[in-house]
Amino acid sequence: MKKIKELTVDETFEMYVLIKNADVRLAKNGKKFIAFTFQDTSGSIDGKFWDASEDEITRFKAGLVVALNGKREVYQGNPQVKILHLRLTRPDEPSDPGLYMEKAPVKREEMEEEFNQTLFEITNAHWNRIVRFLLNKYQKEFFDFPAAKRNHHAFSGGLAFHTLTMLRLGKSITKEYPQINASLLYAGIILHDLGKVLELTGAAATEYTVAGNLIGHLVLVDEEITKACLELKISEFDEDVVVLRHMVLAHHGLLEYGSPVRPRIMEAEILHQIDNIDASMQMMTSAVKNAEPGTYTERIFGMDNRSFYVPKDV
Amino acid sequence: MKKIKELTVDETFEMYVLIKNADVRLAKNGKKFIAFTFQDTSGSIDGKFWDASEDEITRFKAGLVVALNGKREVYQGNPQVKILHLRLTRPDEPSDPGLYMEKAPVKREEMEEEFNQTLFEITNAHWNRIVRFLLNKYQKEFFDFPAAKRNHHAFSGGLAFHTLTMLRLGKSITKEYPQINASLLYAGIILHDLGKVLELTGAAATEYTVAGNLIGHLVLVDEEITKACLELKISEFDEDVVVLRHMVLAHHGLLEYGSPVRPRIMEAEILHQIDNIDASMQMMTSAVKNAEPGTYTERIFGMDNRSFYVPKDV
Amino acid sequence: MKKIKELTVDETFEMYVLIKNADVRLAKNGKKFIAFTFQDTSGSIDGKFWDASEDEITRFKAGLVVALNGKREVYQGNPQVKILHLRLTRPDEPSDPGLYMEKAPVKREEMEEEFNQTLFEITNAHWNRIVRFLLNKYQKEFFDFPAAKRNHHAFSGGLAFHTLTMLRLGKSITKEYPQINASLLYAGIILHDLGKVLELTGAAATEYTVAGNLIGHLVLVDEEITKACLELKISEFDEDVVVLRHMVLAHHGLLEYGSPVRPRIMEAEILHQIDNIDASMQMMTSAVKNAEPGTYTERIFGMDNRSFYVPKDV
Amino acid sequence: MKKIKELTVDETFEMYVLIKNADVRLAKNGKKFIAFTFQDTSGSIDGKFWDASEDEITRFKAGLVVALNGKREVYQGNPQVKILHLRLTRPDEPSDPGLYMEKAPVKREEMEEEFNQTLFEITNAHWNRIVRFLLNKYQKEFFDFPAAKRNHHAFSGGLAFHTLTMLRLGKSITKEYPQINASLLYAGIILHDLGKVLELTGAAATEYTVAGNLIGHLVLVDEEITKACLELKISEFDEDVVVLRHMVLAHHGLLEYGSPVRPRIMEAEILHQIDNIDASMQMMTSAVKNAEPGTYTERIFGMDNRSFYVPKDV
Amino acid sequence: MKKIKELTVDETFEMYVLIKNADVRLAKNGKKFIAFTFQDTSGSIDGKFWDASEDEITRFKAGLVVALNGKREVYQGNPQVKILHLRLTRPDEPSDPGLYMEKAPVKREEMEEEFNQTLFEITNAHWNRIVRFLLNKYQKEFFDFPAAKRNHHAFSGGLAFHTLTMLRLGKSITKEYPQINASLLYAGIILHDLGKVLELTGAAATEYTVAGNLIGHLVLVDEEITKACLELKISEFDEDVVVLRHMVLAHHGLLEYGSPVRPRIMEAEILHQIDNIDASMQMMTSAVKNAEPGTYTERIFGMDNRSFYVPKDV
Amino acid sequence: MKKIKELTVDETFEMYVLIKNADVRLAKNGKKFIAFTFQDTSGSIDGKFWDASEDEITRFKAGLVVALNGKREVYQGNPQVKILHLRLTRPDEPSDPGLYMEKAPVKREEMEEEFNQTLFEITNAHWNRIVRFLLNKYQKEFFDFPAAKRNHHAFSGGLAFHTLTMLRLGKSITKEYPQINASLLYAGIILHDLGKVLELTGAAATEYTVAGNLIGHLVLVDEEITKACLELKISEFDEDVVVLRHMVLAHHGLLEYGSPVRPRIMEAEILHQIDNIDASMQMMTSAVKNAEPGTYTERIFGMDNRSFYVPKDV
Repeated sequence: MKKIKELTVDETFEMYVLIKNADVRLAKNGKKFIAFTFQDTSGSIDGKFWDASEDEITRFKAGLVVALNGKREVYQGNPQVKILHLRLTRPDEPSDPGLYMEKAPVKREEMEEEFNQTLFEITNAHWNRIVRFLLNKYQKEFFDFPAAKRNHHAFSGGLAFHTLTMLRLGKSITKEYPQINASLLYAGIILHDLGKVLELTGAAATEYTVAGNLIGHLVLVDEEITKACLELKISEFDEDVVVLRHMVLAHHGLLEYGSPVRPRIMEAEILHQIDNIDASMQMMTSAVKNAEPGTYTERIFGMDNRSFYVPKDV
Repeated sequence: MKKIKELTVDETFEMYVLIKNADVRLAKNGKKFIAFTFQDTSGSIDGKFWDASEDEITRFKAGLVVALNGKREVYQGNPQVKILHLRLTRPDEPSDPGLYMEKAPVKREEMEEEFNQTLFEITNAHWNRIVRFLLNKYQKEFFDFPAAKRNHHAFSGGLAFHTLTMLRLGKSITKEYPQINASLLYAGIILHDLGKVLELTGAAATEYTVAGNLIGHLVLVDEEITKACLELKISEFDEDVVVLRHMVLAHHGLLEYGSPVRPRIMEAEILHQIDNIDASMQMMTSAVKNAEPGTYTERIFGMDNRSFYVPKDV
Repeated sequence: MKKIKELTVDETFEMYVLIKNADVRLAKNGKKFIAFTFQDTSGSIDGKFWDASEDEITRFKAGLVVALNGKREVYQGNPQVKILHLRLTRPDEPSDPGLYMEKAPVKREEMEEEFNQTLFEITNAHWNRIVRFLLNKYQKEFFDFPAAKRNHHAFSGGLAFHTLTMLRLGKSITKEYPQINASLLYAGIILHDLGKVLELTGAAATEYTVAGNLIGHLVLVDEEITKACLELKISEFDEDVVVLRHMVLAHHGLLEYGSPVRPRIMEAEILHQIDNIDASMQMMTSAVKNAEPGTYTERIFGMDNRSFYVPKDV
Repeated sequence: MKKIKELTVDETFEMYVLIKNADVRLAKNGKKFIAFTFQDTSGSIDGKFWDASEDEITRFKAGLVVALNGKREVYQGNPQVKILHLRLTRPDEPSDPGLYMEKAPVKREEMEEEFNQTLFEITNAHWNRIVRFLLNKYQKEFFDFPAAKRNHHAFSGGLAFHTLTMLRLGKSITKEYPQINASLLYAGIILHDLGKVLELTGAAATEYTVAGNLIGHLVLVDEEITKACLELKISEFDEDVVVLRHMVLAHHGLLEYGSPVRPRIMEAEILHQIDNIDASMQMMTSAVKNAEPGTYTERIFGMDNRSFYVPKDV
Repeated sequence: MKKIKELTVDETFEMYVLIKNADVRLAKNGKKFIAFTFQDTSGSIDGKFWDASEDEITRFKAGLVVALNGKREVYQGNPQVKILHLRLTRPDEPSDPGLYMEKAPVKREEMEEEFNQTLFEITNAHWNRIVRFLLNKYQKEFFDFPAAKRNHHAFSGGLAFHTLTMLRLGKSITKEYPQINASLLYAGIILHDLGKVLELTGAAATEYTVAGNLIGHLVLVDEEITKACLELKISEFDEDVVVLRHMVLAHHGLLEYGSPVRPRIMEAEILHQIDNIDASMQMMTSAVKNAEPGTYTERIFGMDNRSFYVPKDV
Repeated sequence: MKKIKELTVDETFEMYVLIKNADVRLAKNGKKFIAFTFQDTSGSIDGKFWDASEDEITRFKAGLVVALNGKREVYQGNPQVKILHLRLTRPDEPSDPGLYMEKAPVKREEMEEEFNQTLFEITNAHWNRIVRFLLNKYQKEFFDFPAAKRNHHAFSGGLAFHTLTMLRLGKSITKEYPQINASLLYAGIILHDLGKVLELTGAAATEYTVAGNLIGHLVLVDEEITKACLELKISEFDEDVVVLRHMVLAHHGLLEYGSPVRPRIMEAEILHQIDNIDASMQMMTSAVKNAEPGTYTERIFGMDNRSFYVPKDV
């Protein structure tokens, strides 16, 4: 069966897709319609369901898998689907939303293994125990959550995958600069975005929680470290713990980006720069994948709204 | 006995003062001298002690009360003292540094009483218990610490006095706008700067702690609320607790000023504006007090480096 | 009779409303329609009048009261009215536009009384005479005009009400800080936005005048003070007059906000901060009133485009 | 007799100079000294007068002409004079301060003549009358004042000269763009900086007045136009008068530079740009004059602190 | 025959026009339509061609001249044409696109003559030879290209016309300030925007080239000077050549506007300011031409999005 | 023999050092003195030579090696040397300035070898030839020049060492992200700062050249690529060459930092980020080396003036 991104213009198709969004609106003729976003592992596409009955509105909710019969069209330059027929899946058909969500390109087991190996390289006892404690506490969410609602790594497992890639970069960089405290850098990398498991609602239909909006993931993970210290009977005012909290609080680099303090230790600055590299690589790669050589990508919001050129013949 | 600020130019005097700073430096002639700042409750003044012996350097340390015989002069537009004679106080002379530090203009007992009264107006049980817990935990420091190293309320008891004045303003404003949640505003005001007892070293020779520099008082008090919840068995994810944490985290108003989130609830915005009013009133008043009518004050760093005009005949 | 804001979705109704705007546009089918905004004291709502004849276009003008038979719907998330029938009011029906405009929550007489009382507290003779002269000169407009075209206090009487609330705040703050020159602060508050009676066209269908756009209300009121001095035979270079002009010119606080000078006297800074408090309280309150507890308000343009959270269960 | 700028390093000299500044300070040895700035038409130089007696302090005041016997030296890279002997001028010696101040390079009579000619080209009756009225009212000051305390045209007659050069540029530009309203542009140019006669204290020992600091020359001249209208019985709300006031208020171009409104009519934008050209030409020319070809000028504060290169062999 | 800008609302007409843009889109009914922009020497207008067949889509391409029978309407405040009939021109009808493009208001021959005269005023041999070489190399494009894709001088010949007007301004300014090196200023003016012949694709259907986007016209003309030096056997490190390269690289004035260096020689600063004057005069004049006296122009993107007022009765 | 950085306070010593700077100034007593900066491979220190005769001023010039007998003191918190005796080196003593300059920590031969190996990984023929051509043309300077006048890698060989470290980082990052065009990244890295051999004067007494100040190293290397293309008969408008020029022009990342274009291809963005990492690692490491654990470094100008904390016991 074809995937959403493989359809050509004017192609008629039938496929199973996940309803990502389902907003009910009023048409100019006074009747209701549903503005759908459908999703599979290749990407997503919008489509309008006109003259929706109350029954249909109740039936087709976000988070459900449906059988979609449609035609792939273009509307104002964007892909869209003309819905020919839509129904819920039958018992003998696939209905697990997880099958239709984008996923991290590395298997969870491999990621877990690599994190576990890294834990042995965190030789400071306080950092090691805090990291183990929190990875354990949020194990399920860590490997399930995206790294963001949109922008970069906005897919299931994106949080762990983003963290893992940063760890790999961190190891390369540490090799080049032995003056870096590797234990501290690795501990900081593993924890830096863990607050996102409290900031966001999860992998499907990702939204910000109230705590996410009012406190933010930087402080949320700092509070988790504080509570871990209480439980592990580590003084949170030991200098190594203060320094670890600084690592996570400072990782956005600038006050304007929401860090309450700018990096004031070497490893905190490097953590911030590694984060930048992986986030921008992920955003640029996604954009470049959707553009032909010799053309420009769409503007990337998270990169100051720049569009990038994809060179040809090089 | 006269106070420092009452001396006239070229006046010779003898008085007891506190050594606020004592920096040892090298003169152009290769000999050491001590650059003193002396202080009493009226203010402070600089003076150089030339050709200091190793013995004198050891004897005259910051934090000690001394008997100073000097002449009040002016150097490059600033007051300074020419030191004629200097000695440590004798057993029968006053030697308590507390006698020579600026103090809040309201007595501690009165302030305590007013805070206690306010606690009854915080009707939300979580907020009430958290505020009581933390006021209790840091009672001594709260009434002793300054509100800042320099700039505004940089005197003993300044933290409590700044908080109290804000409470009074908060009550007036709440009267004008009944839509404000008074409990929340008062709880937020009381806690907003409490992290300074961890950010600063104390009332005398005030410096930033490592945690103050690397974490900052906004997050430090947020962590205290988190720990209080654990001890008081309040869920820190109850919405009222989230909202209280937001109050303290957002009170600098702008990300550029170190808040990890901007105010997103009405009371948080008002807390920020009340803080502004009291801080700027205190800075302007200090500056205006030292300027003659018809002249301009010194530039005030904390107010975008503006100097203010003191009108005459109005 | 119900008010606009009391209608429920899909409710059919008949009511008298004021035409606030009536823009004629061309539909996709080549026929003209009128895009109406209807208004009563509870708020406003949009509605389209399709296939409008030239006669209807001439008849239904902004500023008239009409009898509207319609159905309350939702279009792209915003309330709108489907117009079933529309006609001008008959002689025996209410037709005074003033009946359908939002109003200040305090009666004009009460406001006048309170301003008059305050005049006795302005003890400097120049300030007192200038304020009396200008309040007298623009008495009608002062109690009729809004404080802005949109954003805060955008209703009939909004200018006087905004000024009055600021006066009340000013009195509370002066009580806390006796070093403030109360006469000056009150005179400055009363005059600070009076230039809006020249900047705007009035309470109904409020627009900017040419002088409003090219000169602005800060300088317009400064010019009024200058002319008042000529008429009252007060030298405009007396220091107290200079200081009063500074109060009104500096009240936007920052050059970027249109003040030609930043506050350089203590009372000017405080005037600016009081203005901030009342303007933001009014904007936040309007927004919060339209949002359910547990949700976020619309973004507020005048507050750096932030949306605010309305806590629940607190 | 040589001029200040013609002296070579280590040259001993005797000349008449004007005392521009005379600040009394305290030396490290506890004795007073006078920090002088001496001036003649070629420029100025600093010099310290050590061990000054009270009598000497009283005798040598700013604004007096003195006979100076000194040696031209260099101190920390800057020219300075070692004072060998200093005395007041005798009755038979020159003592008019005006002889020692920098002057505009065009004679006052020529400037007056050129302004008079231009008045005939201002064909709008309101503008013509207002400009004549104000030029007449401030005639003496207009031809005497500098255009600024420091930065550009900071010399006697600088205000009129700056205005005249702008008029000449304005005429050239109007020839290129006939769509410009020449009357308006010329009226705007003549009035744009006239408020400086109220903002500054005069040509010698130039300081800001209180009105200059608290109101600023843009609004000061706007007020003058307002008062002129009252006296000339011109309505200040006639559109041409509004537009003229806009010209002077907007001429700093950006709110950040102190204009309460940005240019909103074509001629106001061009007035701003002409002002820029003449101000920057004057600043660059002064700086370049003091630098050798092949070297860089000092940093120019008024041009974003840039230093300029003076090319050689071109 | 009438021109586009001369049509009145609801007027039916027939005229020859150039297809400037022809975008194919999908209507809500699922059928394709062509969104046209038609152009003649007076300006341009949009119009939609509904239910376009594949044949029509192929036939009506941008860059072709067509015979248009339509009705001039208004849609959402903007002029638009309702297309009644559309056909390609017949052999006996005009079909040269150049006949329908806006043109510089000065004839090419006159411009060439004026540039040639100016070359004699560039007395430095290096500058003279480089300018001649490059004007010769890109002669055709220089007189054909617009000065920008949109904003100012966006018409055929706009580049040469913009350059010529700047030269005229440059000559007036040089007369006022003889300290300016006229040779250098004129050489800089002629070359400053010449890189646009490589940055843009040409006069019709103007787009940015890849080199335009990735390198920009400032560096592109700098490279041309470098190559010219190689061919003319002039050392590119001679100071006069360095200075000329600086002129073109610095002419945007600020780093934020894409200059890799800010102006550091007097003539470079003046070149930048002359460029500002002509660009803004052209943008303001275009906007003002389309607005009635007593109204405001559309917002002008290139002038910080300001709209300008067109005074009446002045 | 001890090195400069190994001296303790008040230690008397004799050593050979290089005169880095020798500024002649006038003391308050009217006599000349020389303000020296002495340097060896461990760092530098200042010292004043009082009462310098004309002969001594002529003898002790920057760039010479001298025998210094002095005492290591502290002046206003900074290390300085009290000069007891100073003389030029004798024929039998070391006099090669190169022996006293800081050097890259990797040997030139090793660096050359690593660059040569990398050339084989640049598989695009144009890029390969251009890089080889320019490395060859500026071979001597590339391995001799510093990467900056001050800030980071300000030592002999710093340019090549900075480039080499970036290459190593580039290779690690490319391994993590195979979507990066490695050839392009490596070519861009090698050339990105090569313009510094024209921007700066060399390794000793490093200053900016006129071309460095007026054109800057980004455009200077772009011009070198342009000229290389002419000599190698490669069309500079081939897309791969355009892209390579973009790499060097965009590597400062932001217009405000002097790039005429922001990165618009993926590899250009990554080049910029790698540059950031190595520059900041070098600046932080230098600063941290001079600070004790538990203290803060000096403020680092190139890192937004932050000071960094050096944790202890971690």
